Amino acid sequence: MTARLHHLLSMEDLDAAMIELILDTAHKLHEIADRPIKKVPTLRGRTVCNMFLEDSTRTRLSFDLAAKRLSADVLTFTGKGSSVSKGESFRDTALTLKAMGIDAVVVRSHSSGAPQQLASYIDVPVLNAGDGWHQHPTQALLDLYTMRHHLGDLSQLHVAVIGDILHSRVARSEVQGLRTMGARVTIVAPPTLLPPSIQGWGVDVVRSIDDIIDDIDVAYLLRVQHERMQGGFFPSSREYARIWGMNGDRLRRMKAGSIVMHPGPMNRGVEITSEVADHKRAVISDQVTNGIAVRMAVLYLLLGGGPEGAGHASAEVMA
Amino acid sequence: MTARLHHLLSMEDLDAAMIELILDTAHKLHEIADRPIKKVPTLRGRTVCNMFLEDSTRTRLSFDLAAKRLSADVLTFTGKGSSVSKGESFRDTALTLKAMGIDAVVVRSHSSGAPQQLASYIDVPVLNAGDGWHQHPTQALLDLYTMRHHLGDLSQLHVAVIGDILHSRVARSEVQGLRTMGARVTIVAPPTLLPPSIQGWGVDVVRSIDDIIDDIDVAYLLRVQHERMQGGFFPSSREYARIWGMNGDRLRRMKAGSIVMHPGPMNRGVEITSEVADHKRAVISDQVTNGIAVRMAVLYLLLGGGPEGAGHASAEVMA
Amino acid sequence: MTARLHHLLSMEDLDAAMIELILDTAHKLHEIADRPIKKVPTLRGRTVCNMFLEDSTRTRLSFDLAAKRLSADVLTFTGKGSSVSKGESFRDTALTLKAMGIDAVVVRSHSSGAPQQLASYIDVPVLNAGDGWHQHPTQALLDLYTMRHHLGDLSQLHVAVIGDILHSRVARSEVQGLRTMGARVTIVAPPTLLPPSIQGWGVDVVRSIDDIIDDIDVAYLLRVQHERMQGGFFPSSREYARIWGMNGDRLRRMKAGSIVMHPGPMNRGVEITSEVADHKRAVISDQVTNGIAVRMAVLYLLLGGGPEGAGHASAEVMA
Repeated sequence: MTARLHHLLSMEDLDAAMIELILDTAHKLHEIADRPIKKVPTLRGRTVCNMFLEDSTRTRLSFDLAAKRLSADVLTFTGKGSSVSKGESFRDTALTLKAMGIDAVVVRSHSSGAPQQLASYIDVPVLNAGDGWHQHPTQALLDLYTMRHHLGDLSQLHVAVIGDILHSRVARSEVQGLRTMGARVTIVAPPTLLPPSIQGWGVDVVRSIDDIIDDIDVAYLLRVQHERMQGGFFPSSREYARIWGMNGDRLRRMKAGSIVMHPGPMNRGVEITSEVADHKRAVISDQVTNGIAVRMAVLYLLLGGGPEGAGHASAEVMA
Repeated sequence: MTARLHHLLSMEDLDAAMIELILDTAHKLHEIADRPIKKVPTLRGRTVCNMFLEDSTRTRLSFDLAAKRLSADVLTFTGKGSSVSKGESFRDTALTLKAMGIDAVVVRSHSSGAPQQLASYIDVPVLNAGDGWHQHPTQALLDLYTMRHHLGDLSQLHVAVIGDILHSRVARSEVQGLRTMGARVTIVAPPTLLPPSIQGWGVDVVRSIDDIIDDIDVAYLLRVQHERMQGGFFPSSREYARIWGMNGDRLRRMKAGSIVMHPGPMNRGVEITSEVADHKRAVISDQVTNGIAVRMAVLYLLLGGGPEGAGHASAEVMA
Repeated sequence: MTARLHHLLSMEDLDAAMIELILDTAHKLHEIADRPIKKVPTLRGRTVCNMFLEDSTRTRLSFDLAAKRLSADVLTFTGKGSSVSKGESFRDTALTLKAMGIDAVVVRSHSSGAPQQLASYIDVPVLNAGDGWHQHPTQALLDLYTMRHHLGDLSQLHVAVIGDILHSRVARSEVQGLRTMGARVTIVAPPTLLPPSIQGWGVDVVRSIDDIIDDIDVAYLLRVQHERMQGGFFPSSREYARIWGMNGDRLRRMKAGSIVMHPGPMNRGVEITSEVADHKRAVISDQVTNGIAVRMAVLYLLLGGGPEGAGHASAEVMA
């Protein structure tokens, strides 16, 4: 029996049982996407507020669609320049959303810890859609879902997370989720792009992708952020591609059945060549598709659905 | 028997019977917020256009939510830079919305009189969501609703409206609504922040909050707009707080049962201290909550619902 | 028997039978606008993505409303500055939308050919809502619908298209649609504003509106784009109005029953005087109204509705 989910702030908060519950719920909700009417009335009359203080079209659309497939209403508010970026008024904004009777807040912010702050102010469920360099839990969950779907038991996997770990909220969430599920994780990164805390992560670290390429089940590539490159954190795109990029030669050295993943958007020619990006063993589109189901599951569980309800929910059809 | 409501442009247009009708309708619709499915099918198939030529996240979300709780569809258009700010093309924009079959237009503009203009161009109901320094009628109505809920008969109340009256559309609408309902109003403001027309408002004017603090039922605090302060209209934040701000000492001098209100967003430490803002006698969150019900009521009445229908509307449930 | 519609990219792709099918479908769906509940459940559970990489409030709202009247969910994404304007990542954005299970993409772009590109990347139906100087097919279709409604058999009409042909996607789509339906078209434009390809268009070209004013059934006025005027393409507004503008004198020289059209937004006093714009023979508001029905029809047909279904669709009512 697992505890009830109150917020989704960080992968650190989720134990293996809760992760399993979310993935199982997503699995039940997933088949709604294959129906002619891709919608269930489960969250009718509920309102989800999409608070995107940092731009992210793809994540915003994914949450928007997930909420609408459950028949929730969605209020959207964007704009990093708004008053909500400032300390005290952020609390008042939170209290305003609560007073409006919003049922859940999805928040994306360039400020690490903003979702935690929000959750401390209001008892409305808060979903972290990415905060600074800190966490991006729904990305990790959709990735776990995708790995489990393609490869089965997560505890048996060896996953390489490759690239700029230091500045990546995806890496942080990803590794925590994988470790909680018992997977083996190897980090592949230049020393300049490793966080000081890396020794506590329970991972191996290697410098070149070639050191582990023939042993891994998943090559998880992080997006190169070009502003980091200008900051001198790593050399040219070409140099990056040579040492840490995934290309056809490396793909062919991977084990049978292994897969390549990327959270998107991709820099083709830098961390991944087009040959790999468009290869059938790259499951990047699946990640996007699964993101809808995983976000539906999280919304469903946060808004009070019990473990048994998801089956009922997916059994419902629109009147 | 009261006249039918065609537009909601200014509190000046509403007599006491119409205000009562709106507040009573809001009261009936309010309980929808307490249901598991916070939605009624009353305005299904109707379309409300949210035309926010001036930014206002909180007011936009409130109207958006009010419309969706009545099952209306909402089209949003924002952007003060758009062509609609210019005279003639504003008329053509209005005619375009009408030709599209929009059922109601909610308009926010930094230009005083824009909603009146719009209403002169088209017969579609127009709701003023704030225009320049002129009017903000739904704010006044939600405040009246909140006062009536907490304190009962509006004609028996003594309300102090405190702060920058000159530049405040909220103050103008608030005072008109209160006077129409027979309340006594005292204005507390520096002489530089009083409009020339103040003598015709039917209010008393005092310079310091301490002159009337022990006699009022409601302390209604206006938001300090910092750009005014830079304009030399009033001194520093500290000075403002000392003379016109609400703090714990003043709150304790207020009568038993009296309340503190603020239209938001608050400048904590300027017009209100955090001690007051978070006190149980500050009903600021109630104002936000009531705003949804009041805006539902106005949309409902403007889109043709009769006085008797609101009871039916709130009795309906989603299929 | 006409082929099924897979995308709506260009008027060039539509034969007369397909145009007839779209107009007939729009006609059946049009009467939904006259109902108290202006909505049918036809596309419930389907999701339309409104991808407006170039701003256009009126076209965006029209598609938004059309989709909602068919009960589709709408995801909106705007912003010309976003990563999608760049070659390769535009393909990845397309693949992301497809992976999300979007059912149709409406795309507006300042880049000619962007919708074709999108359609080459994904098998999801793509609707061109205007691309650069290239095409604006739904504008042409709503205009054909409006002409047929007011004047009957399109093959019997003589239409003058007047103004800046060179930079106008509307002109290009309009002329192709009219020619496909067998209408006679005369272009009225200064030589500097004619495209080199004009000789292949199957139209007559005259320099002054007065040369054909008494012979035409429709005066179709293009919007003057002031940035062109600064580019030296044509003289002052006054000069433009004198030679190519529609005014009361010219209107009175037109045949009985003839009409004036404009795609909007109008520059009153330049290509059209207010006397004409507000005259009952100017059917500009009808064009806007018909735009909703035509966009409903196109969405309906692209999302799999057969010719016979539209009657059923308009016969359905909301549960």
